[in-house]
Amino acid sequence: MGITAARGMFLKDGKPYFLISGEIHYFRLDPRLWEKHLRLLRDSGANTVSTYIPWDWHEPEPGVLDVNGASHPGRNLILYIELCKKVGLDLIVKPGPYILAEYELHGLPAWLLERCSPGARAIDQHGNVISPDLMCYMSEEYLTYSFLWYDHIMPVIASHQKSAGGPIAMMQVCNEVGVFQWLSGQLDYNPAVVHLYREFLRERYSAIDAANRMYGTAYRTFDEVDPPKGVIGTRDQYRAYVDFHLFYRHYFALYLDTLARKIRSFGIDVLLTHNIPGWIFGNAAELPMLISTYEEVLRTRSDIVFGLDHIPEFVSYRNAHSDLACNKILAAMQPHGPVWAAEFQAGTREHFVKNDPADMETFYFASLAHGLRGFNYYMFSQGINPSGKGYYGKTFYHQTPVNAGGSVSRLYPVTRNVAAFIKREGEELLRSETRARVVVGLYTPYFHTELTTSQMLKEKRLYIEKIGLSLDPRFVREELFFNGLLRGLQTLNIGYNIRDLETCAEEELLRYRQLWVVTTEFMDAKTQALLASYVAKGGHLVITPAIPVMDNYLHPCTVLTDAFGVRAGKASGPPKVTALGIEEVFCQLSEKQVYASSGGEVVAITRAGEPCGLGIRVGAGRVTALGFAFGYTTDEHLLLIEKILSLDRIRRDAHVSDPDIQVVTRYGTKYTYMFLLNYHNRRKSCTIGGRRHTLSPLSYAIVKKARKG
Amino acid sequence: MGITAARGMFLKDGKPYFLISGEIHYFRLDPRLWEKHLRLLRDSGANTVSTYIPWDWHEPEPGVLDVNGASHPGRNLILYIELCKKVGLDLIVKPGPYILAEYELHGLPAWLLERCSPGARAIDQHGNVISPDLMCYMSEEYLTYSFLWYDHIMPVIASHQKSAGGPIAMMQVCNEVGVFQWLSGQLDYNPAVVHLYREFLRERYSAIDAANRMYGTAYRTFDEVDPPKGVIGTRDQYRAYVDFHLFYRHYFALYLDTLARKIRSFGIDVLLTHNIPGWIFGNAAELPMLISTYEEVLRTRSDIVFGLDHIPEFVSYRNAHSDLACNKILAAMQPHGPVWAAEFQAGTREHFVKNDPADMETFYFASLAHGLRGFNYYMFSQGINPSGKGYYGKTFYHQTPVNAGGSVSRLYPVTRNVAAFIKREGEELLRSETRARVVVGLYTPYFHTELTTSQMLKEKRLYIEKIGLSLDPRFVREELFFNGLLRGLQTLNIGYNIRDLETCAEEELLRYRQLWVVTTEFMDAKTQALLASYVAKGGHLVITPAIPVMDNYLHPCTVLTDAFGVRAGKASGPPKVTALGIEEVFCQLSEKQVYASSGGEVVAITRAGEPCGLGIRVGAGRVTALGFAFGYTTDEHLLLIEKILSLDRIRRDAHVSDPDIQVVTRYGTKYTYMFLLNYHNRRKSCTIGGRRHTLSPLSYAIVKKARKG
Repeated sequence: MGITAARGMFLKDGKPYFLISGEIHYFRLDPRLWEKHLRLLRDSGANTVSTYIPWDWHEPEPGVLDVNGASHPGRNLILYIELCKKVGLDLIVKPGPYILAEYELHGLPAWLLERCSPGARAIDQHGNVISPDLMCYMSEEYLTYSFLWYDHIMPVIASHQKSAGGPIAMMQVCNEVGVFQWLSGQLDYNPAVVHLYREFLRERYSAIDAANRMYGTAYRTFDEVDPPKGVIGTRDQYRAYVDFHLFYRHYFALYLDTLARKIRSFGIDVLLTHNIPGWIFGNAAELPMLISTYEEVLRTRSDIVFGLDHIPEFVSYRNAHSDLACNKILAAMQPHGPVWAAEFQAGTREHFVKNDPADMETFYFASLAHGLRGFNYYMFSQGINPSGKGYYGKTFYHQTPVNAGGSVSRLYPVTRNVAAFIKREGEELLRSETRARVVVGLYTPYFHTELTTSQMLKEKRLYIEKIGLSLDPRFVREELFFNGLLRGLQTLNIGYNIRDLETCAEEELLRYRQLWVVTTEFMDAKTQALLASYVAKGGHLVITPAIPVMDNYLHPCTVLTDAFGVRAGKASGPPKVTALGIEEVFCQLSEKQVYASSGGEVVAITRAGEPCGLGIRVGAGRVTALGFAFGYTTDEHLLLIEKILSLDRIRRDAHVSDPDIQVVTRYGTKYTYMFLLNYHNRRKSCTIGGRRHTLSPLSYAIVKKARKG
Repeated sequence: MGITAARGMFLKDGKPYFLISGEIHYFRLDPRLWEKHLRLLRDSGANTVSTYIPWDWHEPEPGVLDVNGASHPGRNLILYIELCKKVGLDLIVKPGPYILAEYELHGLPAWLLERCSPGARAIDQHGNVISPDLMCYMSEEYLTYSFLWYDHIMPVIASHQKSAGGPIAMMQVCNEVGVFQWLSGQLDYNPAVVHLYREFLRERYSAIDAANRMYGTAYRTFDEVDPPKGVIGTRDQYRAYVDFHLFYRHYFALYLDTLARKIRSFGIDVLLTHNIPGWIFGNAAELPMLISTYEEVLRTRSDIVFGLDHIPEFVSYRNAHSDLACNKILAAMQPHGPVWAAEFQAGTREHFVKNDPADMETFYFASLAHGLRGFNYYMFSQGINPSGKGYYGKTFYHQTPVNAGGSVSRLYPVTRNVAAFIKREGEELLRSETRARVVVGLYTPYFHTELTTSQMLKEKRLYIEKIGLSLDPRFVREELFFNGLLRGLQTLNIGYNIRDLETCAEEELLRYRQLWVVTTEFMDAKTQALLASYVAKGGHLVITPAIPVMDNYLHPCTVLTDAFGVRAGKASGPPKVTALGIEEVFCQLSEKQVYASSGGEVVAITRAGEPCGLGIRVGAGRVTALGFAFGYTTDEHLLLIEKILSLDRIRRDAHVSDPDIQVVTRYGTKYTYMFLLNYHNRRKSCTIGGRRHTLSPLSYAIVKKARKG
């Protein structure tokens, strides 16, 4: 049966299974050392090995395939697969077409680029080829060539998959689809894409008049519709981008679906996977945007399990909230598949990263605390690039557990410690769960901005003031939601869960004492209605920095304010409010939402005395609306979060004498695991439940206890 | 006599003097605790205390001045000054007009903002007020009010300055002038500024026809000239920005000069100072741009000593090159004044900064190694803001050596250690120098981009491809120069000096074995001639990533290529070259400069075999021209730098068995001080000269030895 996924876990032969994998690139190693590397990986306690299969490497000339080393011993993929089986490791294969992996041309053969016409390439908004190696995913030419590659490689994979007695247990479909689009800030204006966009709109609007009304245009047919370009000057232009972002998600879903269906046509039955990048400068605030770009495929193709590329670069209290938040967000969007790290930092590509073994061990155990159910060390083994194949030069990765020559580094024993812990605790650990009394609502439309405003965008296209908005969705989701609320909760040792407001059931939300939603001025009517109903049925909604008063197309939509009997206006002034009795709370924006309401209690006021926070009882529940922007930049912000939580007696998960220590408790069926995490570069001593713990700088401890009664 | 500055040092009563200061804001402390805070500072070993004097605080209503506490005991500045004297500390005062300091409205009184007309405010390119609290520095209205404030406060200061028997030994003129312009990416289009700009051009061009030829315009008089606005589309538009950047520097010089002359008119004779900010996200790559904005005043007003705001946020091998590089750059531009830290991180304003005492001690001692000749702990004492006066809320700074209540933290003993070392070593340390065999040329026009392309610029105005350039000056100076070459040299333990190519003497350069210049495609004829002459006279010039072929206005200017007998062209292709025998050196840009030359040796080739590196003997010297972009992003880059240095037998300053340890040797008259710096979060052992040293994570050691012979 091999590996499957269900109930948020990997299963092997139907039983819960922790995937412990390491990335080893056979094409970057001396074939005489392949077995040595694989044995070192297995001996570290891993059960799986992962590798790309570079198209370029195995098809050096068009139609000349080499998977058995006829032209070069390093091309003997068959031997490598057999060695995996011999050594006793499952194998994850990643045959592209794109592999990236700092391989020249991202793994595409140079001859392919020469053969392909401009029509096979991604095109920018001015009609120019974006980059010779950036193909149009859905162009017939690119797909035809890719399928020729698949025709060659997939039978090899099929004949070595688990069901055929081989070691291959999973396959990744392409690699980080969308990463170039994200980095270049443009989707693709290739006519093949524009055609699909028009089809998408036809499906969505049926009649061209409906689309015209939305965009303020005068198209006669959908075939005339042009995708949006350039900087947004009007709300009509903004509306076109709203749909273009939805199409972007549809387009990636189409591409992955096309590849996956082709893969399945070869009788390949293994679990498929795909990986999502997005840590930048040691912070993952933009990663959830990249998760959101897969939302259509996440909702439609359950046989593709998405994994995260967890490359924090450095381990610190500064980014300690990042992996936890991303794991929770992926879990919300992929409720059945396990949260796993398709690339789990081990070693580094870059010089500005030092991968101290003790730091990494802390990160690895924190990941277990944070609910990771599998990972793939990236890289387990260093590589030396074949001549001319390395993007950054000869040496691929540094400070890996095993170097290219097959000697182990100080990181190797760390991988043993991690695997030993996982094996020892087994299913008990895998089935363990954290507890949360607070749920945070995820609203992915706030993440639909990769083409208009994102960290990596060179030419920003959305200036909110031009279209009369006050809240930039990027600012809201990065600074108020991710680095604000989610970092604040983590700092406070308050366990939380995340739910996707567009897909989760109302009952799910009602299981928690509080629901926090960090908003912009817009939210679709259905989601507004969900929140209103949640409150009516007894929930406590904390909503900030604004109660939305528009839908996602910026048309008036006051489901929430109507339900709460509130009128909302805007006020500007000094960026300070008094809220829940805390004076001079700093606001990250000077504009605030102020309220007029017949009932309810004013819980926050501006310096001018205007009410900018309300506590209102509605139906069986209540709303705390805070119309000002606060992330986590001052002490008072933390205090404010804590005060609001205490309204429902939500307290820190553990009483720790040193609040700098992070505590995560996982509840198994028989045992609890309390993870103590010291993300600080300082020795820490603390008392928890009467017992004293001392933690070295950047270290962890685990307290395992039998559960009572 | 008090404090003066000469020969790169502070002098007190004419003798070399290390300024050890701490910032204490009396207006944020209970007056009953003032003396306690001052005594704690003095007892830590400091000789000086520094404070802002907020205009708003002392002139709560127009014309109602309080400096003796009549309206509020916290306003008793006279008492505070007297206490400084009583306790035995010199005093640095910073009376604004602007103080920033997270004080509401940056220290300006609210009534001033109400009284001032739009004509007193900075204006953006669309004619709008940029922000109500951003005044036009040279508007008559703002200056008139500021001088009224000076009329009140300067006599108080004059009567308490050293020459009058008081403790005041230095004064800062305004605060971080230009920081708002940098953050907002706009100078000021106020008519008063435009008028000065026109005067500046009249001075520069004399005849309007000359200006018209430069800009491709048809103005009839200078009074018609408009300052450049918006995105650069043509080289003509670019040329206008070149002059606008020069004017920007002239404008700041005018403003500081105007304030300084006014200050002197009160008989104030103390040394003046000004502070320069610019660390962002733990890196100071943009700080030198801010130093460059003061270049005119640096060249014209020797009685203002500039200090750096050294706020690294965290201490790490990742930013270890930053403070050293900035110190060297400031020293190059301020050869007579001492390099000092006007704000020397102690405690933190932000939550995302933890100020571990051991880390900070390492940073402080590294600063001594890196040539700092004075500093002001910012903040020495925490403060609690008077109601409504704090920008971020009530509490001002965390983790300071002394908290607002007067208790000391674990950082306090660190400040004692630092002062004790400085006192013990005295003049010997102050007069000590590092040695360097390599000099790096600083060319500040590459930093004249704060209005066109900078990290903080929201609307970037320079897209180099639009005007046919290949090398973005911001990229060159940040990634190739600062984070590339200067980081590489520091990592290699190669001592270097920096010289300002526009002001230094040729003989200065000829003292070194190599001169490295990191270039763009442009450089003025005079500087090109300097470099050519330097080579002719026997210097070894290493020039990369291009030999300039244009002047700063992008007119052809081939002084260098002519002198070297080289023709330079452009080539694109894979970002890899073979250079000095190193294969597959990664290039950070795919475009390269390729050479045709009758003589010389090809030292680098592109993958297509084109020569992109030349070694040429010219006159008594030589040139190594490397026409490709390399910073420090791969191992090979470091190797390449080392190989080039070894051409002139320039070796690492010390043989350390662990290359991760930074070594800086300072040579005094009788002793040498070898500073060993461990910037890594790992215990390190190493052998130097046969002796074994063990360094804890993030720590330092100092080996003092008597000099031989």
